[in-house]
Amino acid sequence: MIPQLRDVPIGLTDTGTRREFDSMGSIDVPADRYWGAQTQRSLIHFSIGRDRMPVEVYHAYGYVKKAAALVNQAAGRLPEWKAQAIVRAAEEAITGQLDENFPLFVWQTGSGTQSNMNVNEVLSNRAIQLLGGQLGSQEPVGPNDDVNMGQSSNDSFPTAMHVAAVTELDDRLLPQARQLAATIEAKAAQWADVVKIGRTHLEDAVPLTVGQEWSGWAAQLRACITAIEHSREGLYELALGGTAVGTGLNAPAGFSRDVAAKIAELTGKPFVTAPNKFAAQGSLDAIVRAHAALRGLAVALMKIANDMRWLASGPRTGFAELLLPQNEPGSSIMPGKVNPTQCEAIVMIAIQVLGDDSGVAFAGSQGNFELNAMRPIIINNVLHSARILGDGMEKFRTFSVEGTELNRKKIAGYLGESLMLVTALSPVIGYQNAAHIAEAALADDQTLRAAALASGKVTAEQFDQIVQPEKMVGHGVGGA
Amino acid sequence: MIPQLRDVPIGLTDTGTRREFDSMGSIDVPADRYWGAQTQRSLIHFSIGRDRMPVEVYHAYGYVKKAAALVNQAAGRLPEWKAQAIVRAAEEAITGQLDENFPLFVWQTGSGTQSNMNVNEVLSNRAIQLLGGQLGSQEPVGPNDDVNMGQSSNDSFPTAMHVAAVTELDDRLLPQARQLAATIEAKAAQWADVVKIGRTHLEDAVPLTVGQEWSGWAAQLRACITAIEHSREGLYELALGGTAVGTGLNAPAGFSRDVAAKIAELTGKPFVTAPNKFAAQGSLDAIVRAHAALRGLAVALMKIANDMRWLASGPRTGFAELLLPQNEPGSSIMPGKVNPTQCEAIVMIAIQVLGDDSGVAFAGSQGNFELNAMRPIIINNVLHSARILGDGMEKFRTFSVEGTELNRKKIAGYLGESLMLVTALSPVIGYQNAAHIAEAALADDQTLRAAALASGKVTAEQFDQIVQPEKMVGHGVGGA
Amino acid sequence: MIPQLRDVPIGLTDTGTRREFDSMGSIDVPADRYWGAQTQRSLIHFSIGRDRMPVEVYHAYGYVKKAAALVNQAAGRLPEWKAQAIVRAAEEAITGQLDENFPLFVWQTGSGTQSNMNVNEVLSNRAIQLLGGQLGSQEPVGPNDDVNMGQSSNDSFPTAMHVAAVTELDDRLLPQARQLAATIEAKAAQWADVVKIGRTHLEDAVPLTVGQEWSGWAAQLRACITAIEHSREGLYELALGGTAVGTGLNAPAGFSRDVAAKIAELTGKPFVTAPNKFAAQGSLDAIVRAHAALRGLAVALMKIANDMRWLASGPRTGFAELLLPQNEPGSSIMPGKVNPTQCEAIVMIAIQVLGDDSGVAFAGSQGNFELNAMRPIIINNVLHSARILGDGMEKFRTFSVEGTELNRKKIAGYLGESLMLVTALSPVIGYQNAAHIAEAALADDQTLRAAALASGKVTAEQFDQIVQPEKMVGHGVGGA
Amino acid sequence: MIPQLRDVPIGLTDTGTRREFDSMGSIDVPADRYWGAQTQRSLIHFSIGRDRMPVEVYHAYGYVKKAAALVNQAAGRLPEWKAQAIVRAAEEAITGQLDENFPLFVWQTGSGTQSNMNVNEVLSNRAIQLLGGQLGSQEPVGPNDDVNMGQSSNDSFPTAMHVAAVTELDDRLLPQARQLAATIEAKAAQWADVVKIGRTHLEDAVPLTVGQEWSGWAAQLRACITAIEHSREGLYELALGGTAVGTGLNAPAGFSRDVAAKIAELTGKPFVTAPNKFAAQGSLDAIVRAHAALRGLAVALMKIANDMRWLASGPRTGFAELLLPQNEPGSSIMPGKVNPTQCEAIVMIAIQVLGDDSGVAFAGSQGNFELNAMRPIIINNVLHSARILGDGMEKFRTFSVEGTELNRKKIAGYLGESLMLVTALSPVIGYQNAAHIAEAALADDQTLRAAALASGKVTAEQFDQIVQPEKMVGHGVGGA
Repeated sequence: MIPQLRDVPIGLTDTGTRREFDSMGSIDVPADRYWGAQTQRSLIHFSIGRDRMPVEVYHAYGYVKKAAALVNQAAGRLPEWKAQAIVRAAEEAITGQLDENFPLFVWQTGSGTQSNMNVNEVLSNRAIQLLGGQLGSQEPVGPNDDVNMGQSSNDSFPTAMHVAAVTELDDRLLPQARQLAATIEAKAAQWADVVKIGRTHLEDAVPLTVGQEWSGWAAQLRACITAIEHSREGLYELALGGTAVGTGLNAPAGFSRDVAAKIAELTGKPFVTAPNKFAAQGSLDAIVRAHAALRGLAVALMKIANDMRWLASGPRTGFAELLLPQNEPGSSIMPGKVNPTQCEAIVMIAIQVLGDDSGVAFAGSQGNFELNAMRPIIINNVLHSARILGDGMEKFRTFSVEGTELNRKKIAGYLGESLMLVTALSPVIGYQNAAHIAEAALADDQTLRAAALASGKVTAEQFDQIVQPEKMVGHGVGGA
Repeated sequence: MIPQLRDVPIGLTDTGTRREFDSMGSIDVPADRYWGAQTQRSLIHFSIGRDRMPVEVYHAYGYVKKAAALVNQAAGRLPEWKAQAIVRAAEEAITGQLDENFPLFVWQTGSGTQSNMNVNEVLSNRAIQLLGGQLGSQEPVGPNDDVNMGQSSNDSFPTAMHVAAVTELDDRLLPQARQLAATIEAKAAQWADVVKIGRTHLEDAVPLTVGQEWSGWAAQLRACITAIEHSREGLYELALGGTAVGTGLNAPAGFSRDVAAKIAELTGKPFVTAPNKFAAQGSLDAIVRAHAALRGLAVALMKIANDMRWLASGPRTGFAELLLPQNEPGSSIMPGKVNPTQCEAIVMIAIQVLGDDSGVAFAGSQGNFELNAMRPIIINNVLHSARILGDGMEKFRTFSVEGTELNRKKIAGYLGESLMLVTALSPVIGYQNAAHIAEAALADDQTLRAAALASGKVTAEQFDQIVQPEKMVGHGVGGA
Repeated sequence: MIPQLRDVPIGLTDTGTRREFDSMGSIDVPADRYWGAQTQRSLIHFSIGRDRMPVEVYHAYGYVKKAAALVNQAAGRLPEWKAQAIVRAAEEAITGQLDENFPLFVWQTGSGTQSNMNVNEVLSNRAIQLLGGQLGSQEPVGPNDDVNMGQSSNDSFPTAMHVAAVTELDDRLLPQARQLAATIEAKAAQWADVVKIGRTHLEDAVPLTVGQEWSGWAAQLRACITAIEHSREGLYELALGGTAVGTGLNAPAGFSRDVAAKIAELTGKPFVTAPNKFAAQGSLDAIVRAHAALRGLAVALMKIANDMRWLASGPRTGFAELLLPQNEPGSSIMPGKVNPTQCEAIVMIAIQVLGDDSGVAFAGSQGNFELNAMRPIIINNVLHSARILGDGMEKFRTFSVEGTELNRKKIAGYLGESLMLVTALSPVIGYQNAAHIAEAALADDQTLRAAALASGKVTAEQFDQIVQPEKMVGHGVGGA
Repeated sequence: MIPQLRDVPIGLTDTGTRREFDSMGSIDVPADRYWGAQTQRSLIHFSIGRDRMPVEVYHAYGYVKKAAALVNQAAGRLPEWKAQAIVRAAEEAITGQLDENFPLFVWQTGSGTQSNMNVNEVLSNRAIQLLGGQLGSQEPVGPNDDVNMGQSSNDSFPTAMHVAAVTELDDRLLPQARQLAATIEAKAAQWADVVKIGRTHLEDAVPLTVGQEWSGWAAQLRACITAIEHSREGLYELALGGTAVGTGLNAPAGFSRDVAAKIAELTGKPFVTAPNKFAAQGSLDAIVRAHAALRGLAVALMKIANDMRWLASGPRTGFAELLLPQNEPGSSIMPGKVNPTQCEAIVMIAIQVLGDDSGVAFAGSQGNFELNAMRPIIINNVLHSARILGDGMEKFRTFSVEGTELNRKKIAGYLGESLMLVTALSPVIGYQNAAHIAEAALADDQTLRAAALASGKVTAEQFDQIVQPEKMVGHGVGGA
């Protein structure tokens, strides 16, 4: 008689413990959780720190298990009733309904096997529950033989890594990056005609517009977004089907291709099977590259946030060109103080992403033979970086960039003061003459105009015609 | 009439929200939490990722607030009833009873002001509760004027960082490091006489004992422990008393000295006031150095864990000299497989600590003027590194090192095979002759003895007397 | 009268010193060098360490100056005779004939201005020499007004960085990477049918072919090459024309577009003008990304070199599957010892590239306003990484990979020993039964076959049919 | 007959090539160089990039070889005439007279064996020359049997690393660090009474003195110096005597102790033998820790240089509190521009040291068994970092710090403007009232005094008595 899938709500109401077994023997697990023996062993052996494997990995694993079950069903390797029970449980994993059943730590086996077995055990027991079986019996749906059919941790874990990473990039990071870029572009357009003094080496330089300055930040972000989008190409290639060492042992012919196609179908993303499974399992190069793209964004954000907080420094003894929104009191001792806290958070996030990136590259280099056993640290860092960048950009945009205003009085005040306006004279009177004018103006604390006229190299009429900041800013937000 | 301290149990049973205010206005906070307006603002503006400021920072802050209150009381700046209410609340913070009232994220203002205000607000409201006042009224115990009296975030936060870091090192990391070293030393003693082949460049070399090899690992750990202990010297110096910019404005004369002495008394650790408050607040150099010491431990642990897993590789096609405990099934597809998972976790932890360390150094370099506003990232990384190293060493020791056994058959089998035993002949027959013997043995796939005799450079009697591995290992576990 | 370009050979035969001037005054320079006052000042102020600005930067700068002169000539801004003198001198810079005139250190001004002025001064004096003028007179070809016409260091230095980086990638790095990949692919093809035991977690796993293992390394390299090629896209965008702050002040309309086209024409590479000059000068993001691609190669190379040296470990007490060429004696004390030195060099190079990469990313984040003043460190690290990777791969290929042979006896010996061959039984008898067989074989030190038959779960006939390593390796070098 | 030591000047006048041999056969070397076969093989196999093993390593190696020869002579293992010939040659190495005979690259064997053999070969041939023998004959002084007597690369190379590192720290880095600290302390004393506005979060804060600000920088440097001095402790422990794997095979009893004592005597530094040779050769932990101390200095220098250049920003649109010496024209296009170039060089050096440090830590973690084969990269980075830090500090001090002046007009102008002076009112009128005064002053663009009086919370008399910047700076340069 074919077991029937029942509509049992998610959850276990038992108390105390339940006996679960694996090839090493049996062990007690909490009766109100779906996990089995190997999860429990991992909890005992690896309760290290507070870093749990991110739930996004398990959501992604849901797709892996669902796709595998469907392909195995289609190939006649799994009976429909069994496959559908796994599919139902996998869907619950995908949507986060089983999250509290995935308790394992990041610092575990380097292959991610314990997390894969955690998924296998939970889906097995949930499927057993749905089919009216006995939890912990591994019947009629076994964690290894059924849920893990045609798979290994060695191919399924990096597959889940790629699915989770792409999802995080698409759903959280990239939308926030695009919104931040768009917000900055809008400001650039708004202030396209506000001429300000430029600064190089922190020193007074020639003018540009506020819009041009902001356009540079936006252009940085746009290039970073393109690079992150490009880095997904490598992530679209999935190891699944390589099984234990990349050869596909115990997976049927065509499994890797079919299961990648199924994951693509289920996720709506262009996943394909990796052309070389030995590289896909022995290395983690594609995701190392993806983190490098995140690092690129961190590098750009740090420059932008730093520029903003320096330009907003003051209010009375700093640059004070920008007025950032005042979100909270800034000091427990200095009344009325307000600080560029959103910028500071972005700077710290950027630094953390660079640190995470160092770890990712190091870990990426430490593969041996048919496996890179540094997977948990890498996926944790990738998801961590993506998350804090995404959330950080959202807060930065919402609570700082959008509400930023210009201190037009300050900006106008600085404009005429830079001695570097002399640069405009250079093509007419030569660099050396121009230099001597600027030096004289500084030494004698006089205006550039006064020094220029005193030099005898230029007439008042010439000076007034040439040295006009608003004529020195070129055209458009791109510059040059 | 002097308010009386009542014995009100910790906790708020109200539901809904409560109105709290700060200098920017008023705002609703959850009625069942002690925090006030600035905490709430920070939650709104900085809910970034999942990284919360570690509770250890707040436990340490409890000491800061308690010490300040006692010193202020002794100096007559706080009335006794008020000081004692703050002390009582601070003690509850120290013991972790107020943990759920400290919800802020790591990615906040770089000075840690929001966490300081979180502490100030919670202790203020708890003290008000204890004194029968109105929550949110800031009366009779104000967060800024009373709990924060004589302090700034700029001096109190780095003080809490140092107290938290020293505590974590003393209570968690160093005991685990010492236990691991002791365990390895015990193994070294146990196996002091087991002669094995050495390896350099991964290649066969001359013999040493298993005990000597393990003694090297223990010596590495002991040196790391000494370095970590030494790094506490800088952490013992506290910024408290410097207030806003290091000058001590609004703190009375002697406050910095007295409050450091009080913290030393309360914690039983030799804290002192930092001799230069501008360095103590403008930089985070001491804690950057402390993290470097943690990194040193990570570097050593990586070598040790790598050695162990390579020596345990096999069981049939690897080195197979060590037998690690078998804690859990190693593969979801390869039945019976067991892997060196504790070693892998240590390697990943080590890499993470190196990545965290990069971030800490970078952040440490980014101070400006009277403040390094990169504090949250640094204390978070320091506590994170210490925690995963401490926990990781505990698991590694308990579940792998202690149960490691020797595969004496393998070890003995390798011993006579290394052609590098020829080294012992070198002082007698010269390096070049010895080299030709080793080369001949390898080329002809014969034993070293056979090749040596065939060379005519040495007699059988000489060979047997000189080439005895057990005589080639020198004396003692230190070597040389 | 128009000055005539004379055919004066390169070089100055004067001895002693020559007086040169700039806007700050005059200064003595060596009479046998072409440089002027600003170069000399930089030598005095910045003789730090032994790191000189790489000559490749000056070769690239030759293109910049030549292109600018030609565009300025075409626009009528420079008379032909003057432009052609500059062009002639620039060509000598491009071909390396003026290298000894570029002595400056890496640790100088962060904009690279001193190196730009070094070029301007050398080309000025060389042009003066060609035109029969007085060295140091800045007449008739001035360093600022003529050689630097329409340019700033702020736009020309990053342009030279991009040209130098692309050239190094195209001429040295990529060819070597492609040759190494091809060599490994040839080995993979040669050994496509040699079945060997796989290893995951350093532990015995299921079989694959030697060709498959090598194909994985080649696939890693091919992906790295693609990523490096892709990273050139950002490098093709040139800042030139943005002048001082990105607005193009003092450069004529169309200059940026024309000069990029001219550089493309001269170099034969698809350079274009950067669409946003503020990003191109205020950040160095494109070249940070290019270094990330180099780092990706380092990560892959480290894995490959590590695999090779571990597989070659021995000769008698290691894995000993590979026989690396023996290039030099390996030990000053152990006669006959030979080590995997090429692999070690690659590993060290990879680590250095990762360290350089950290520095590049950090530096990339430290721009302020209209300039990232961290250019010298970045171009030095980029060229350094590219060079040691390129040279390292050449030596590694030539002296190690090409001559690597298989130890077929060892490979064959291991093949049957891995208990993980039991995996093939798993689909037939179930994972748990298979696990118990493997465990029994290990515990009792018997063959897998004996343990399998003893278990009663499988017949001898079944076993012999299923457990055939050569049938377990799937198809093709891609695997799966 | 005992060979006589002749007074042959250093150098070989032969042209063409000379035949040299090692255990692998014979090979041509340049006739005008002392090196032998193994050096030549390394040149062929490892000409990678432009990174040569620093000469300081060879100078240090001179001490190693001299000490070993003397100890071997005293023990009767080397005849006096032979020992003295080696000693004479070693002294020439120590003093740099043989530098051009040490051409090897950094990217070589990871043990440094090739550099050790380079030394052995050069000293062998130089000794042969001094004794009237035949170059390349290895008679009567052999590179392996005599110059390398009782040594291995595995113990001698890390010994040379430690000697070279300590020497570089003592002779170059520490003196420069101390001079820079002293210079800054002198400025702090000079400006102890100049009150200025403080800044936290880049924002206006309460006052301090210029002397206090500078004292913070000096205190940072002093702590870094102490840490570097302390890091020498680990470097004083020498591996020499451990020979091939740490057991001391082929070295006589007491050799390690005696040779360390001899090196201590020759160098005048407190070197001792390492207590555990397996740790001393299997790890490089001590020198990893030493580089961490250098990194600590880089972190501090970056903060100091950044503060200086920001405080000097301007001259007209920046902070402009400091006037840095004007050393060179700052722009090729903007006449009269001067930039904080020494600060920029320090910042880049600091970043490079952090990158080098990442590499050192990574390499330090990659030891295997009885050897860490990452030595060349580590010693190269250590010496590189020490050198650029030392030279960089010298230039920074000489050309920037010493000549820095105050812009007293600017400093005084800012002083009264900061609204944070309101902090002094806080103890009197409470934080919230004080905050509202500061907010009102900013909103209405009025002085703090006007806003305070308008608030009604304070009288003019009170205000004038309390809000006096010069009374708000506490006592002394330490602060607090």
